[in-house]
Amino acid sequence: MISVILVGNGNVATHLYEAFIGVDEIKVTQISSRELALIPQADVTIIAVSDDAIAEISSKITNDFIVHTSGSVSLNDLKNTTRKGVFYMLQTFSKDKKVNFNEVPFCLEAENEKDHKLLETLATSIGKKIYKINSEQRKTLHVAAVFVNNFTNYMYKIGNDICEKNNVPFEILQPLIKETASKIDYLSPKNAQTGPAIRNDEKTIKNHLNLLDTNQQKIYKILTKSIQNSIDCV
Amino acid sequence: MISVILVGNGNVATHLYEAFIGVDEIKVTQISSRELALIPQADVTIIAVSDDAIAEISSKITNDFIVHTSGSVSLNDLKNTTRKGVFYMLQTFSKDKKVNFNEVPFCLEAENEKDHKLLETLATSIGKKIYKINSEQRKTLHVAAVFVNNFTNYMYKIGNDICEKNNVPFEILQPLIKETASKIDYLSPKNAQTGPAIRNDEKTIKNHLNLLDTNQQKIYKILTKSIQNSIDCV
Repeated sequence: MISVILVGNGNVATHLYEAFIGVDEIKVTQISSRELALIPQADVTIIAVSDDAIAEISSKITNDFIVHTSGSVSLNDLKNTTRKGVFYMLQTFSKDKKVNFNEVPFCLEAENEKDHKLLETLATSIGKKIYKINSEQRKTLHVAAVFVNNFTNYMYKIGNDICEKNNVPFEILQPLIKETASKIDYLSPKNAQTGPAIRNDEKTIKNHLNLLDTNQQKIYKILTKSIQNSIDCV
Repeated sequence: MISVILVGNGNVATHLYEAFIGVDEIKVTQISSRELALIPQADVTIIAVSDDAIAEISSKITNDFIVHTSGSVSLNDLKNTTRKGVFYMLQTFSKDKKVNFNEVPFCLEAENEKDHKLLETLATSIGKKIYKINSEQRKTLHVAAVFVNNFTNYMYKIGNDICEKNNVPFEILQPLIKETASKIDYLSPKNAQTGPAIRNDEKTIKNHLNLLDTNQQKIYKILTKSIQNSIDCV
């Protein structure tokens, strides 16, 4: 039996709590970060709070083994004087949507092999995709995630804005969006690249620019140029 | 029975041919654009060739009703003297991958209601998602598709480059990529936007910029600023 304390009330803490509660070998307790004085001892204490609060909250807990769940915070930003680790799940968690933990990559870090094994046992009790990722690698993943998640979503937003302005239903683009995401399962993004930029189709590029507002033009131009340069370097 | 001539040997022509051949009510013949002199008469002649070749090829065909399959070419760029139309499928077609036409949006345009009905009958014989889209709207869709497909794939490429440079497996990001694409089924891209840009999290933004090369920084900055401005305008 592994005892787990979950500190926090947000999406990550709540989804994790619901997952652990279904595992026989885990005894899990969820605690608000406002009740730090009342935290019982446990094999693993998981702090699932906002990045800015991790240092302060970890400094106030005396439990043996404390891990955080952040992609952008280093292991050493934990300020407990006991053992430290990271239990980072690279996925977007929405409040009302059930998480399929089998699809969630668990990025684990610990100070020694025994602690790493413990985190691995926790992760495999609810998931399948387990990775050993140190703080430097995790920072890398976090910034890469900004491109493939935040900036990609912003590409969808621009597409939506263009459609709305011209009275075209955005839903027409949704199958293409899904296919674009699926394609990289069997093609590298480099080999999956299509479009006027990579074809050097100046006529289409000019036509497209005429349809865009100033801000959209700026983004279209910089991405087109960058795609074209990325080919020259091959 | 509807008779269809397909002109072209590319991905679109070939996938369409394979779909139509399975429909009892359609008699389809595929012809290379080099055999224009031999084209028999048909109810619909579909020119599925590269954008640049559409005007010339259409000018050489005397069949009654000629349509093209391009997203960026106007109906009036067809140079036949008979009836014109557009049979545009908004999806990426890969040579070796079977197309699920039920998921493909058909964007149809014709000069009169009767021709539109004919194209609709063709489209519904192999697919489900049928839209009436004029040439202006189609141009809009085409540029929006550049953002949600070409530029999105380029975001994946940058994510991949960042991972490769730091020895992190890119596959860790794939579930996030899929979830990002699925999320807009139930949230508008505007409401699905997350990340340091929209949170105005200057500390994380600064940390991220330190991990990127000059070109990646340029893209990161312009997209971050644009996301932040898009909020101010709400």
